[in-house]
Amino acid sequence: MRIVLDGMGSDNCPEPEVQAAVEASIKFGEEIIIVGPADELAQHLTQYPTSDPPVRIVDAPDTITMQDKGLQLALKAKRKGSKTSMAVGMDLLTSGEADAFVTAGNTGGALATAYYRLGTIPGVERPSVSTFFPVQGGSCVVLDIGANPDCRPEYLMQFAVFGMVYSQRVRGITDPRIGLLSNGEEPGKGNELVRDTYPLFEKSGLNFVGNIEGKELFGGEVDVAVTDGFTGNVLLKSSEAVAKLLVDTLRQELTSSSRTKIGALLAKPAFTKLKALLDPAEVGAAPLLGVNGLVLIGHGHSDARALVNAIRSARKAVEADLISALKSAIEERQADMNTEENA
Amino acid sequence: MRIVLDGMGSDNCPEPEVQAAVEASIKFGEEIIIVGPADELAQHLTQYPTSDPPVRIVDAPDTITMQDKGLQLALKAKRKGSKTSMAVGMDLLTSGEADAFVTAGNTGGALATAYYRLGTIPGVERPSVSTFFPVQGGSCVVLDIGANPDCRPEYLMQFAVFGMVYSQRVRGITDPRIGLLSNGEEPGKGNELVRDTYPLFEKSGLNFVGNIEGKELFGGEVDVAVTDGFTGNVLLKSSEAVAKLLVDTLRQELTSSSRTKIGALLAKPAFTKLKALLDPAEVGAAPLLGVNGLVLIGHGHSDARALVNAIRSARKAVEADLISALKSAIEERQADMNTEENA
Repeated sequence: MRIVLDGMGSDNCPEPEVQAAVEASIKFGEEIIIVGPADELAQHLTQYPTSDPPVRIVDAPDTITMQDKGLQLALKAKRKGSKTSMAVGMDLLTSGEADAFVTAGNTGGALATAYYRLGTIPGVERPSVSTFFPVQGGSCVVLDIGANPDCRPEYLMQFAVFGMVYSQRVRGITDPRIGLLSNGEEPGKGNELVRDTYPLFEKSGLNFVGNIEGKELFGGEVDVAVTDGFTGNVLLKSSEAVAKLLVDTLRQELTSSSRTKIGALLAKPAFTKLKALLDPAEVGAAPLLGVNGLVLIGHGHSDARALVNAIRSARKAVEADLISALKSAIEERQADMNTEENA
Repeated sequence: MRIVLDGMGSDNCPEPEVQAAVEASIKFGEEIIIVGPADELAQHLTQYPTSDPPVRIVDAPDTITMQDKGLQLALKAKRKGSKTSMAVGMDLLTSGEADAFVTAGNTGGALATAYYRLGTIPGVERPSVSTFFPVQGGSCVVLDIGANPDCRPEYLMQFAVFGMVYSQRVRGITDPRIGLLSNGEEPGKGNELVRDTYPLFEKSGLNFVGNIEGKELFGGEVDVAVTDGFTGNVLLKSSEAVAKLLVDTLRQELTSSSRTKIGALLAKPAFTKLKALLDPAEVGAAPLLGVNGLVLIGHGHSDARALVNAIRSARKAVEADLISALKSAIEERQADMNTEENA
């Protein structure tokens, strides 16, 4: 198994990437390919002892940055000779030289590059970006979180299938509970999209628990939460911002007097647990689903530990043969739909 | 000035309502009218010393409950002889016997009752339910949070005007900063609704700061955040659920050992501040905007203190002559639009 790591992804790249590549190759005993400007990566690599198997560098002098948007980003993603770390890295999947690509870079860039270079799984309407939310007692996969701000019911139906297959194959959940994010639990609640999607979910044969709200999502009542990319993105960014506001307020208050400072010191184990709950490094990365290759996207803030966890997630997905499972599931669902139409 | 309080609104009604009515009439030196089953309210009232002016009970034997939905709710809201506390209470606004109506009851019920009994302000497309979010350094009015799951750009434009007028008149903010909730800050980001709304906001003459995400919202960078009722509702419920998850996790961890328990005791002032940040009672109630009368809706969990704060908010809105200000603003904007169309 060979995993490609984008050397130019995280906010502090390439240092965390190089460290993670070395650690992962030692930990998992498998070759890690790191893509990016070869000289720069090689120089960083000299700081570390040689691993066995060694980390392999593949040169990619260009980078997709957070500033790349619109046409410029599309060109970097699509162009045949593109030498961005994402393009070069994903081309290794197409050529069969590697099994998965991990990046902590620009999500839009990874999506566009995957879309143009890997294509979508046959029958897939739209690929979707997923992420893990920390919830009571575990985590929940939420998708889409930004790839598709405007969705149709059929897209959401496929997102549910993506989330189900991923949860079964990689997370080991036999019968994942799937919820449709809405503004009320009752059937009939929702905007037009949700109201039109609900009946599709109901007759899908999936373990559909119905419409869900924040309470069910963060209460750990579902394994997969499906929504359009606009709502999902607002949900993601707002949840992060609420958590930050609370933690900042608490930190500020805890350091405001000697009494609370001592209290905070004694209560430290509790805060450590809270910090772990909010730490995206715990999961590492979530898959881009629907594209014809394994691409995992981590948080821009990822450090080496987060990236090693991301590589671990990628390994699990390779072992589970996730792409084949997704292909079968989409094919099966299309066959069902054709039977239904002909009936 | 006379404020009507729904006696049957909060989860623990009517006890908190009766207590709040007595406290508010003493505190503000003005008659509070409480509507609900007269005998029940009178019996609760005997526990309290007589205030001056006394609390007045207006009989309303029927109630809109959290279980009322669809047609049944519509009938209770609309029917001429309806004797729900909301219908009777709002009829007092129509007849000129009172100036504002405050409830901690079913939001959908309050919206429907107001819609049928008070009507909308001339020119208003859709009334909107607003709420206050705690943000860095203060609060932000978010609307719509549920009245309109499907919106058009013109609705959002009016919501912005509602939020602006309310913030100027009642919150005392001279030039409220208005943001459009989106999945990215750049112009051009958003779903179809947001992309179509952005240009309207830009040429509106309002203090439009652009698209905002969770970071700007909870970072206190806007005074008013405009969104459709679906997204707003998901945002509200999810924010509450994230905060609950964090506070629950922290509480659980803090009580898990003697060491952290002592720490928590010493750090208590910090937790008190955190609790205050998350306490909807601090604000009390937020207005239903666009209907032709002052209706304020508080959280179902409201206690007497929250309801007194809600009555205080209602008083401020009456003093500010909010409805007239909204009428003028909507009229003015329509005149502008007509001029533009004829130009």
